[in-house]
This record gives sequence, C-alpha cells and structure tokens, in this order.
Amino acid sequence: MTFTTRTPRIVAARRLQKRKDRDQGGRFLAEGPQAVREALAAGVVVELFGTEAALVRHGDLALQAPVASAVTEDALEALTETVQPQGLVAVCEQVDVTLSEALAKGPRLVAVAAEIRDPGNAGTVLRTADAAGAGAVIFAGTAVDPYNGKCVRASAGSLFHVDVVRTGLDVVGELRAAGLQVLATSGYGADDLDTLLDDGVLAGPTAWLFGSEAHGLPRELLDAADRQVRVPIYGGAESLNLAAAAAVCLYASARAHR
Amino acid sequence: MTFTTRTPRIVAARRLQKRKDRDQGGRFLAEGPQAVREALAAGVVVELFGTEAALVRHGDLALQAPVASAVTEDALEALTETVQPQGLVAVCEQVDVTLSEALAKGPRLVAVAAEIRDPGNAGTVLRTADAAGAGAVIFAGTAVDPYNGKCVRASAGSLFHVDVVRTGLDVVGELRAAGLQVLATSGYGADDLDTLLDDGVLAGPTAWLFGSEAHGLPRELLDAADRQVRVPIYGGAESLNLAAAAAVCLYASARAHR
Repeated sequence: MTFTTRTPRIVAARRLQKRKDRDQGGRFLAEGPQAVREALAAGVVVELFGTEAALVRHGDLALQAPVASAVTEDALEALTETVQPQGLVAVCEQVDVTLSEALAKGPRLVAVAAEIRDPGNAGTVLRTADAAGAGAVIFAGTAVDPYNGKCVRASAGSLFHVDVVRTGLDVVGELRAAGLQVLATSGYGADDLDTLLDDGVLAGPTAWLFGSEAHGLPRELLDAADRQVRVPIYGGAESLNLAAAAAVCLYASARAHR
Repeated sequence: MTFTTRTPRIVAARRLQKRKDRDQGGRFLAEGPQAVREALAAGVVVELFGTEAALVRHGDLALQAPVASAVTEDALEALTETVQPQGLVAVCEQVDVTLSEALAKGPRLVAVAAEIRDPGNAGTVLRTADAAGAGAVIFAGTAVDPYNGKCVRASAGSLFHVDVVRTGLDVVGELRAAGLQVLATSGYGADDLDTLLDDGVLAGPTAWLFGSEAHGLPRELLDAADRQVRVPIYGGAESLNLAAAAAVCLYASARAHR
C-alpha cells in the first residue's frame, strides 16, 4: 500500500511542519538522503517515508529505519519543503538536551545563538560550530526553532552531531560555572580577536555568544560576558554577516585549541 | 510631479531587474539608504528614486544625487525586491574593472568566486573579502551577475569598496604573473589551512579560489593552482558552507598580513 496525502500517518507527519505541533509532539522532519542517514546514525528515526523509486535507490537507509513506507509523489511533496528532496523524508525524535546535560560533558568550545530568528543563519552557525569542534550549540532566548525545516537543512546534519540546547537568555552564569570563559561578539567590542589569539586568551575552554545580524546581542548578555570581542575589519565593510563572523571566531578558538 | 509605474523613466529602470538589460545598459539598481549612500560615495549614481517621505527623511542623500525624483509607493515597490526597501532606489553605473586594471594596483589579497551561481553566496563572499582587506573580487566563469539585486544586497555595500572583475575561468596565469600565490580551496586539499598559517606560507600576496558549494572548484582551476588547501574539520560536519569557508580562509590571510 502506497500512502497518499490523505493517509492519517501522512496527515500527522505534515503537522510537524508547524512549530506548535513539533513542540507538542517532540518530533520533527528530516528531508533528503543525507539528513536521513545522519538521523538513522543518531538513532532518532521513528518512521521513514519515501517514493518507491527512492526506497529502492536508498535501500540501505530503508532497511535501517524502524518503519519504512512508500508514499506517492504528491504525499512526498506535501511532506517536504525543498524542490528536490530526493524522495525521502523521516519523522525523527527531537534531539535537544538540557544545558546541564550538555555542560556535564565538559565541552571546550560552545556556541550560543542568542535571539537568532533566521533559520538559515541558525542552521549555518550549527554547521560551522560542529566543523570547528564545538561540543554544544545553545539556542537562547526567542531564537528560531532548531527543528524548523530550513534550519535542519542549513545544518547539513550537524543537528545530529553536537549537543543542541534550547534555553532562556540567562545562560552566562551556568557557562562560567562549567569552566568556560564567555566571549560576546560585538562590532564595538574592546578586544580584537587576533590580539586575543596572539595573547593566548583563546587557549582555554570558551563559549562564544552570537546575536542577530540586525540587532546584535541583547545588552544583558554583552554585560554578563567576560569580554566583548570584535572581529577586525581591514577593508571598507561595516561588518561581517553572522555566518562569516561565527566562522572566524569559532575557527580562531579551534586553532588555539589544537 | 510624482513618477508612477507608467512613467517612461520608471519603466526603463525596472528593466534593470533583468540581467540582459543590465548587461546592455551597463547599469544596475541599488536599494535602500545604505546602498544608496555607498553608491553616492562611489560616484556612480545616475538617478535616485524615492517616495516623498523617504526623500525628506534622507534629504542628505537626495541632495547628493545628480537627479532625485519622487515616485509613488507602487512605483517604488515595482523597482525594488525587498519587503522594506525603506523608500529609496538608485540607478547606478556598473563599477567592474578588467582583471588587468585590478591587478595593476598590486592587491595583496584577492578572492575568486568561480562558477558561483547563488547570488546570496556571491554577495556574502564579496562582503567578507572586503572585510578581510581584499583589494579585488573576481567573478570567474559562469558566475552570478554581481549586479543581481540579491547579490548587491548581500554585499552590503562592498560592491562599491573593492575592485570587482568579471572574467572567464582562465585567471590563474594572470594572477601568478601579478605576484600572487594561488590557493584553491578543496575539502580534499593536501594542505591544511592552519599548517600553512603556522609555516608562514600565507604571509605573501595571495589569491584564494572558491567554488560552488554543490560542485566545488572546476578541475582546471584545482590543477592550475599552486596549492589545494582544506579548512580543517574538527567535528562531525562533512564541510563548511561557502560563506564560512571563505571567511576562515580570507581571515587567515588577513591575520598573516597584519
């Protein structure tokens, strides 16, 4: 039996495109073979849906899923947001942990995305933090839902590699208590990133705070951090975009931690 | 007189939303006060259009423009692509120069965007290269038009700060002849970025080659470059996205050039 857009399990899965239903159900959707592969490796796939062609082409993935069901092209399209989801979408259990759980593992590099509402930016920070070796990424305050489809896609699987935490804005005390120095990024920061790297300041365990491109970090986080750090601007640009600034800061820490 | 969507000058300006007409006319559109301010500073504004309210609010910009004309809300909306263009759009002369002109100035840092078709990515590379102190950004091969509206917006004014070049893919010889070492980015590169930085290799004048996220650099550019360089991946991510990789590489050079 091939599931259609009217099959109750498809109707239920479609609801996961809405944040409210994701929050209530504790589940989300991962599209495409790469994300499905990562979700299976993380052991969080509840059910896999695919077109018949895709389930044959990705037979290894279909075999690993607890349940794999064939769906019509229409049903697949209804479940996915990308133009070419390559025929697969998985219903997954949400993976986030509490801040205490993430910090108990003693991560030496942490990224905090504070009040970041753009899902593409948030997913890119997640991917970049993972690449730089961060152990945890914290979505703080009124941030985008990490299970938003666009964020999941932009994270390119990193949602399944690092500890993801959802919490309020008041994180600095707990980060510091876990032995992390807390560095807030700001275009007007008193400390220059390259100077901190030269002076060995980045060698210790570090949590980086990143704010939205439009508004920067909330004042309370700037004030609570140990330092306010600016990425030096050598040319005529006023600033870097969020993804670029996060990459430069996180890789400066990764370099200092080698 | 307030221009409407039917006024011939508005009709002519609207055509600049299409690449063919931009190429033919040698002009493009810059939206919003920030871009208009940078375009005025660069001396390339031909004509400024704004709602009456915006022309009053940004009277300093209206005064600097060779011609400033009031337009209806509808006409402004027809000329712009963003949801909140803040009432202003300027017709500008295109600013790109030839590769020889750009290299004659002896830039110590150059970014080459090869076959990058996504305008947001291309604009972000332009902005990041500017911030890192690059003198020129080269759009090589079948790359996006740097005057595409989304690219102009993502560049956040950097289109007006650095030398922008449009050229074919065959750039390596000319770059090397200008005294630049040519470094190709590749996930499989033999050289690790941090090791090059440690060994002082990045201290010299450098051109970085960046390919599209989906396809990487064309084989001919990988082979022609002096080195193939990978950004180290410390976590579970397979790769960085283009904007993040470009930021890490260009800022490694900027650090070595201080």
